[in-house]
Amino acid sequence: MAAARCNVAAVAGAVAPAAVRGAAQVERLGASVQGLGVSKFAGLRIASRGASVSGAGQARRGVSKVAVRATAAVETAQKTDNAVVEKSVNTIRFLAIDAVEKANSGHPGLPMGCAPMGHILYDEVMKYNPKNPYWFNRDRFVLSAGHGCMLQYALLHLAGYDSVLEEDLKQFRQWGSRTPGHPENFETPGVEVTTGPLGQGIANAVGLALAEAHMAARFNKPDAKIVDHYTYCILGDGCNMEGISNEAASLAGHWGLGKLICLYDDNHISIDGDTEIAFTESVDARFDALGWHTIWVKNGNTGYDEIRAAIEEAKSVTDRPTMIKVTTTIGFGSPNKANSYSVHGAALGGKEVEATRQNLGWPYEPFHVPDEVKSHWSRHIDLGSKYQSDWEAAVEAYAQKYPEEGAEFKQLISGELPAGWDAALPEFTPEDAGDATRNLSQRCLNALARTLPGLIGGSADLASSNMTLMKMFGDFQKSTPAERNVRFGVREHAMGAICNGIQQHLGGLIPYCATFFIFTDYLRAAMRISALSETGVIYVMTHDSIGLGEDGPTHQPIEHLASFRAMPNMLMLRPADGNETSGAYKVAVLNRKRPSTLALSRQKLPNLPGTSIDNVLLGAYAISDDSKDNKPDVILMASGSELEIAAKAADVLRGEGKTVKVVSFVCWELFEEQSAEYKEKLLPSSVTARVSVEAGATFGWERYVGLEGRAIGVDHFGASAPANILYKEFGITVDNVVAKAKEVMA
Amino acid sequence: MAAARCNVAAVAGAVAPAAVRGAAQVERLGASVQGLGVSKFAGLRIASRGASVSGAGQARRGVSKVAVRATAAVETAQKTDNAVVEKSVNTIRFLAIDAVEKANSGHPGLPMGCAPMGHILYDEVMKYNPKNPYWFNRDRFVLSAGHGCMLQYALLHLAGYDSVLEEDLKQFRQWGSRTPGHPENFETPGVEVTTGPLGQGIANAVGLALAEAHMAARFNKPDAKIVDHYTYCILGDGCNMEGISNEAASLAGHWGLGKLICLYDDNHISIDGDTEIAFTESVDARFDALGWHTIWVKNGNTGYDEIRAAIEEAKSVTDRPTMIKVTTTIGFGSPNKANSYSVHGAALGGKEVEATRQNLGWPYEPFHVPDEVKSHWSRHIDLGSKYQSDWEAAVEAYAQKYPEEGAEFKQLISGELPAGWDAALPEFTPEDAGDATRNLSQRCLNALARTLPGLIGGSADLASSNMTLMKMFGDFQKSTPAERNVRFGVREHAMGAICNGIQQHLGGLIPYCATFFIFTDYLRAAMRISALSETGVIYVMTHDSIGLGEDGPTHQPIEHLASFRAMPNMLMLRPADGNETSGAYKVAVLNRKRPSTLALSRQKLPNLPGTSIDNVLLGAYAISDDSKDNKPDVILMASGSELEIAAKAADVLRGEGKTVKVVSFVCWELFEEQSAEYKEKLLPSSVTARVSVEAGATFGWERYVGLEGRAIGVDHFGASAPANILYKEFGITVDNVVAKAKEVMA
Repeated sequence: MAAARCNVAAVAGAVAPAAVRGAAQVERLGASVQGLGVSKFAGLRIASRGASVSGAGQARRGVSKVAVRATAAVETAQKTDNAVVEKSVNTIRFLAIDAVEKANSGHPGLPMGCAPMGHILYDEVMKYNPKNPYWFNRDRFVLSAGHGCMLQYALLHLAGYDSVLEEDLKQFRQWGSRTPGHPENFETPGVEVTTGPLGQGIANAVGLALAEAHMAARFNKPDAKIVDHYTYCILGDGCNMEGISNEAASLAGHWGLGKLICLYDDNHISIDGDTEIAFTESVDARFDALGWHTIWVKNGNTGYDEIRAAIEEAKSVTDRPTMIKVTTTIGFGSPNKANSYSVHGAALGGKEVEATRQNLGWPYEPFHVPDEVKSHWSRHIDLGSKYQSDWEAAVEAYAQKYPEEGAEFKQLISGELPAGWDAALPEFTPEDAGDATRNLSQRCLNALARTLPGLIGGSADLASSNMTLMKMFGDFQKSTPAERNVRFGVREHAMGAICNGIQQHLGGLIPYCATFFIFTDYLRAAMRISALSETGVIYVMTHDSIGLGEDGPTHQPIEHLASFRAMPNMLMLRPADGNETSGAYKVAVLNRKRPSTLALSRQKLPNLPGTSIDNVLLGAYAISDDSKDNKPDVILMASGSELEIAAKAADVLRGEGKTVKVVSFVCWELFEEQSAEYKEKLLPSSVTARVSVEAGATFGWERYVGLEGRAIGVDHFGASAPANILYKEFGITVDNVVAKAKEVMA
Repeated sequence: MAAARCNVAAVAGAVAPAAVRGAAQVERLGASVQGLGVSKFAGLRIASRGASVSGAGQARRGVSKVAVRATAAVETAQKTDNAVVEKSVNTIRFLAIDAVEKANSGHPGLPMGCAPMGHILYDEVMKYNPKNPYWFNRDRFVLSAGHGCMLQYALLHLAGYDSVLEEDLKQFRQWGSRTPGHPENFETPGVEVTTGPLGQGIANAVGLALAEAHMAARFNKPDAKIVDHYTYCILGDGCNMEGISNEAASLAGHWGLGKLICLYDDNHISIDGDTEIAFTESVDARFDALGWHTIWVKNGNTGYDEIRAAIEEAKSVTDRPTMIKVTTTIGFGSPNKANSYSVHGAALGGKEVEATRQNLGWPYEPFHVPDEVKSHWSRHIDLGSKYQSDWEAAVEAYAQKYPEEGAEFKQLISGELPAGWDAALPEFTPEDAGDATRNLSQRCLNALARTLPGLIGGSADLASSNMTLMKMFGDFQKSTPAERNVRFGVREHAMGAICNGIQQHLGGLIPYCATFFIFTDYLRAAMRISALSETGVIYVMTHDSIGLGEDGPTHQPIEHLASFRAMPNMLMLRPADGNETSGAYKVAVLNRKRPSTLALSRQKLPNLPGTSIDNVLLGAYAISDDSKDNKPDVILMASGSELEIAAKAADVLRGEGKTVKVVSFVCWELFEEQSAEYKEKLLPSSVTARVSVEAGATFGWERYVGLEGRAIGVDHFGASAPANILYKEFGITVDNVVAKAKEVMA
């Protein structure tokens, strides 16, 4: 793994290949996990370990009816005596304390405060199969306050996941470990999404819940609920301050995602101290306004029954998501540091750890799990196995009764693309009428909608500009959750993070989302998480340059192509015409483990001779070359809307007797992955007369034009004027390409 | 101007210089404007044009008491008969219709719906001086729904601003015009901030209101209110959907910004259609929850008195900001397109324009302003002049009575930096103990806090990690608004946009704000507006690389240096030690018209021989060079924390008999602005053996190392482990620099 991470790139060398970390884990976990991602029909091939479910049916004891608002018992919860619960909760606390102490780095405060709700969720409420973290119908859990990840690692450990063994807890935050400093789905099976940048986790959870609601509506029958799980999320003050969480919550309320249950760790402490200094709004009232059901658990530290009752109440409200405000004490149990920022993000220190052990009556060595706790949690392995086998049986019965739906369902959750899906992509010849690549994109989306049953997505209130509607489908709405056009409203950041959640639901859905390319600045943080967490969201970004014209510099992307080319594991595609737009979709759909950003034109472009769908997969290729022996007088390079300009400039130069190779640079990342031979063939090092043209920052083009070449671009902000005027004023013209070509040939 | 915008950069050539558009405007406006920015004591030098205020004292007629909640008259409003008001409102509507029609591009819907509130604000409520758009004590207005900018242009035109003459309206959205497609402060005096990317405008308004509250608290006396104005903002559904607006509103409520009055254009239409499809939350209830006073004007189309009463009520509530929900009809007056998305963002078309003229009884030619409307609005020129002269007299009286405060106040609003301010910056020698640049940054901030009375700022809940507290000051809070440490909470995007507002208040405040460098992804859109709108915010970004260690890849910036280097008009600084940190602050403070981003280390760094404060202003410079005749065997380049590695590698190579030049690349943008001679001297083209080392993406380094060189960096995501392990595993080491240097020297 170390080798894969280490990449000292020579300048003319490669962009780092896509992350390869997943592979090592799958190996380590052995056969118990059916692939790290969505490959294989998740769950169906896991051998059932027998149906005996220990612990089920235990008498419920000691549950007094002190819960806020609700008095009903928690039906699905495992009933246990309070002594074991208490011990389990303290085990969680000390595993977190000990791991942070050993690493001398991390955040013990949240796990100590949230251990009770964490225990109840993983031990009493949630359905999952520890031996197959990817069992499809599991309840999903998201720790939006990702810094508190030791909570989740402790819970996965107790629940019996192979991904977090004792040795992993001891390796917390160390090189090569499966317990990194924030939850990462690609490092730790059992972690659904990658969180840490605050606020995104709850938006991921909205995406997970959306995916469940959508698939349930598409596949469930009155007599067969094969898609049926909850999505739980723990979030903190920081998440609730972030704008993205409000965006996501507004959508969740609008969509009425009744199976989304969030627990807000209301501990009144953030890094800078008491939340009084910056966060005095009424969070409950805000969520009420957003259409959520809200509950307040006043004693989150020891009020187990309050927490149980609140979750039960949340489940009973099916038409709205629920926000349970759980008031806790950060660092609960630490006599001198609880309820202060000092316990938020640093190890307690040996003395305070000792004091906390005294205070909570914890006589054990570091990392010790008492036998009764081990024994209590041990039932989850059989329980999980039974959940899965019961569900598998239900799916088989479903498939017998509803063969068509059953086949589609299995196909979807297999994570495999349907055979021949890409035959739907339109091909073009130069005789076909030109069009804006945003319109061509819509043709692709509508073609793929028929062959890809998982395609789902939409725009941030720009559907008619981004051209993203799938015309044969209606809107995904509260009353029509089986539909596939998602209306995100003007909420770009949540849109991106929700799409991450939709894909990481791992039910085979392929999410796309759209806005103007410039507004990637609003969702960049979510796009980066797509790239980091190996999530193949398709970002459909139209109005990709000054070519958008009159809206002016606030709406004209300049540095954006460069900024995504610099981002690891992001495919930045800028197709030039119809074939390349189809090719870009081919790349985007094939790459389920890395996101693709498609930069698409507002303006009309011709179909150019020499473009092709499959050559897009090479990243860069020649659309024309009239040189002998691959020694053109000049190489012209361009992407997207400027490829036409390069082609026309080539015509002019050829008319003057020069030989010219025109290269379409549709995706730098893919080009960097080609063989050295291919690269040298396309850009022979002997040919240093090179000119690039692109309506964006020239930053980075030195890699291909070299110090002797010229990069024509826009290295300043745009302006408000018709597009053709801007192209002319900014020198993105055939004349200028010809002139620069002559300079470099001189 | 066209020339300044056009920049076809040769590859080895310059990054575009800072925008130069401001200059042309100042010229065009002539002597009536005292500089485009904050230069000169804003307003005091503008000759008063006599005190006769036409229109004042007119009888108020026709005001029925139908206003929501409030019944009191609007005290400060100009009372006018309804016929003129109606005519004025329709003038605004048709100026917008006509300009969009002529441009065949733009957004007529909002101006048509918001004309009544626009009229009341600019004609009856707001205090301003059309002949000096920068008069300090003016009321501020922000059109957060910036696409509706024709509303603002029409109002500025009627009010008598020289920046929007009839010819400017006719040039709407055209090359070189002062009426671009979205409001741009640097193009159109009278426009306070640059809006368009939705949601940022209201956050700018919060910044403007914060600046007013802060300066009022610092300077006003019981007998002298020299800082006393309101901030008004019109925002739409889109703004209210964006997360940033919730962040900003939460802070405004927390801070109790009573003089912030927002009008929400509640028209139920966004680009994708009825807001029912994506936006069904209760906006009023949400703002109530955020601590705002809320009012609902049910008839924003013709309910002038309702609007007046609501604004009056808003003014009467002094301890909270007010959100007035004004229900309007988008495209009001258009018989066939009103209340539909079709009127949002496209010209009405000749036929519908005619129908609208018929419908609203408007017999005039395009762009016509009826005489009675002209005459009615004409009083604002004298009125504005009187406002200013009265205020100037008050300031003079204040300065006599309170000479110390008076001098500081005048100095501040002059926009000039106090003489000798930079003497406070600490200097270092290699003998001084090393420190993290984030700590050195805190020393700078605390030193500058004493010499720069305008310095104000803080962190997004990471003050103790970013090291941004000014220790001699308390917190800017509702009860202590004169203090200068701002607590933004975990709200990065609003933080950036609020800082833009603070600086664009043009009262001489110098805002800084802070978070981890990675979280620039959350506020990038606001940082871009800083760069575009010539706003010198100082972005203090700590934890600037994998050097942050255990928090892992969600927290480790990789592509961020490159992404800001690609952004126009942004200074991206990465200082290496104490002197360079001081130098970075010198650059940042001097550049009041472009933002600076300081990337600062978490980890300790030594003070290196050869660094200096003033050399930072060159962008790149040699810290050591033992070559003869400027022909070193190799040039090593680095920025920030890796400069130490380069220096050590040079020692190794020199020990082996090689001559080495070590170049600190602290700011690429500044280096690109140096003379060709300086650049050639620093990086002689004859020396192609070049190696760069930087703990970030190598993207872009080809510009300096060339195709023959090597760029050592991190072109993949980071990992969770101690920093020293990561440096080693990723090859950011002395050994690797030495090895690569030998490769390129071979």
